[in-house]
Amino acid sequence: MLFVFNIIGVIAFAISGALKGLKHELDIFGIIVLGGITAVGGGIIRDIILNKIPIIFMNELDIYIAISSAIITYTVGKKLEFFSLYVKIFDAIGLATFVVIGSKIALNNNMSILGTGILATLTGVGGGVVRDILVKEIPFILKEDIYATLCFFGGMIYWVINKKFYTEDDLVYNMMFIFIIFIFRILAIKYNLNLPKRKIES
Amino acid sequence: MLFVFNIIGVIAFAISGALKGLKHELDIFGIIVLGGITAVGGGIIRDIILNKIPIIFMNELDIYIAISSAIITYTVGKKLEFFSLYVKIFDAIGLATFVVIGSKIALNNNMSILGTGILATLTGVGGGVVRDILVKEIPFILKEDIYATLCFFGGMIYWVINKKFYTEDDLVYNMMFIFIIFIFRILAIKYNLNLPKRKIES
Amino acid sequence: MLFVFNIIGVIAFAISGALKGLKHELDIFGIIVLGGITAVGGGIIRDIILNKIPIIFMNELDIYIAISSAIITYTVGKKLEFFSLYVKIFDAIGLATFVVIGSKIALNNNMSILGTGILATLTGVGGGVVRDILVKEIPFILKEDIYATLCFFGGMIYWVINKKFYTEDDLVYNMMFIFIIFIFRILAIKYNLNLPKRKIES
Repeated sequence: MLFVFNIIGVIAFAISGALKGLKHELDIFGIIVLGGITAVGGGIIRDIILNKIPIIFMNELDIYIAISSAIITYTVGKKLEFFSLYVKIFDAIGLATFVVIGSKIALNNNMSILGTGILATLTGVGGGVVRDILVKEIPFILKEDIYATLCFFGGMIYWVINKKFYTEDDLVYNMMFIFIIFIFRILAIKYNLNLPKRKIES
Repeated sequence: MLFVFNIIGVIAFAISGALKGLKHELDIFGIIVLGGITAVGGGIIRDIILNKIPIIFMNELDIYIAISSAIITYTVGKKLEFFSLYVKIFDAIGLATFVVIGSKIALNNNMSILGTGILATLTGVGGGVVRDILVKEIPFILKEDIYATLCFFGGMIYWVINKKFYTEDDLVYNMMFIFIIFIFRILAIKYNLNLPKRKIES
Repeated sequence: MLFVFNIIGVIAFAISGALKGLKHELDIFGIIVLGGITAVGGGIIRDIILNKIPIIFMNELDIYIAISSAIITYTVGKKLEFFSLYVKIFDAIGLATFVVIGSKIALNNNMSILGTGILATLTGVGGGVVRDILVKEIPFILKEDIYATLCFFGGMIYWVINKKFYTEDDLVYNMMFIFIIFIFRILAIKYNLNLPKRKIES
C-alpha cells in the first residue's frame, strides 16, 4: 500500500514539475528534468544529509515513473488543467506518503524529534523547492499555505508516537498516519488556510 | 568562549535571515526557515562536502536558538532596525567565529590550505547564500564588501599558523584569531571597503 | 591525454563562468567564485551524490587553473569575445571530457545505466546550473540546445559499451568517445539544433 501511495505521489509531483516547466516554456528535456527533480529531489536531499547514496539510485522505478509522467504531461499539455482537482488530490496523497517515508527513514537513522521533523519536511517539499529555484520563483512553501508546516509537525508527531507507543513497523498505523495528514492537507486547500504574515512598512 | 561566540553568531545570522524574510513578505514558517537556514546552512554544506552527517543534528541547541531568534524577529519586526548597529556587530562576531570553527573542522579532516579556505568560506557565508537564493536575490557576497574574501584568507592563514606554529588546540589563540577577523570585518564596514569591479561595455 | 582535455575543459568552463560574472557586474571575488564553481561544481555535486569527499579536494590543480582562468578573464574582459569561437570549441572539448570522466566514475561505483546517465549529466552541466542559479538566470540547459541531452545519452551509451564490450580501461576508446560527443556538440552549435518546445496558451 505504501508502495502504491508512493507511486501516486511521484506521479503527482512529476506532473506539478512538468506543468511548471510548460509555463516557463522549457524544452522537452527541461520538462523531464523539472518533473523528475520535483518527484525525487526531496528524497535525494534527505539521503545526502543522512550521508547515504540516494536510495532512488537503487530503486529506479520512481525515476522511470517520474520521467513518463513528465513526458505525458508535455504531450497532453494545457488540457491537464481540467484535471487540476485530481492533481491536487494526488499531490496531497503524495505529500502525506513522503512525510511518512521521510520520518521512517529519519527514525531508522536515530534522528531526534527535531531532525525527524526537518527530514520529513525535506522529503515532502525539497523537490518542489529545487523546482521553484530552477525556474526562478520564490519557493511556494515560503509564501503560501499549510504545506511544509504540515510536514514538519507530521514528522515530529510521527517520531513521538513511534518512540512512545510503537516499536514495530506497523502498516495499518502508517496508513492511518498518511490518511490524517492527507485530510489536514485537503482541509487546508478547501478552506484556503494560511499562516500569519506581516508587512514591514517602508 | 567559542561556544558563547558561536551562539552570538547564530542569533545574528538568524536575525538577518528573518529580516530578509519579512522584507519579502514570507509567512511565519518561511521566516523561521530563512532564519534557520542562514544560521546553520553554512555548517550543513561544509559537513555534506566533508561527507559527514551535519553536526547540527547532534547539537541541536543552535537550531532552537535560530528558530527562537527568527520568531522574535518576526514579532518585533520593523523596530529591530533601531538595533541594526548591534546586529552588524553580532554578525561580525558570528562570521569570525564561524571561520575559525570551519577552519578547525577542515584541519581535523586533513584538508589542504586551499580546501581549508574554501570550507571556512562555506561555513561563514554558505547560509547567507542559500538565504539569498531562496528569495531570488543574487547572493550578496558576490557583489559587495569584504566578507567572503575575509573568510577565505582567514581560513588559509589559520591553516598556515596551525601547520607551522601550533599543533595543539589553543583557546587563547582561537580567540585572538576571531578577534582579528572581527576587527577586519568592522573596518571593512566602517570604511565601506569593496573589491574592484569592472563593467563590460555593451 | 584525458588529463590535458580535462584542463582544457576546466579553462573553458571557468571562462564561461567569469564572463557571466562580468555581465552581472560582480566584483573580482564573485567572478573567481563563479568561474571556479562553473569549472568544478559539476564534479562536486556528482561526488556528493556518490557519498564521497569531492575528488577536487585531493587534486587541487583544477581549482588553481579555474581561479587563474577567471582572473585572466577579469583582466582581459570584453576583449575575450573576439575569441568566443575558441571558447565554444574549448567548451565542447570540456563537456565531452567531463561526460566521459563522470561516466567512468559512475561505472566504478556500480551505478546502473540510468544512474550513469544522470551522473554524466551532472558532471557536465552541474557547474553551469549552479552558476546560472547564483546570478538568477534560469539554467541555460533547461531552455536551450542539445547540451544536457548529449551528456545524458552519452553517459548511457558509455555504460552500455563498457558493460557489453569492454571491461578494461582503454585510453583509445575513451578518446574516441570524447571525440564523438565533441562532434555532436559542434554540430548542434553549427546547425543551431534545439529540442522541441511547446507553449501553453493562456
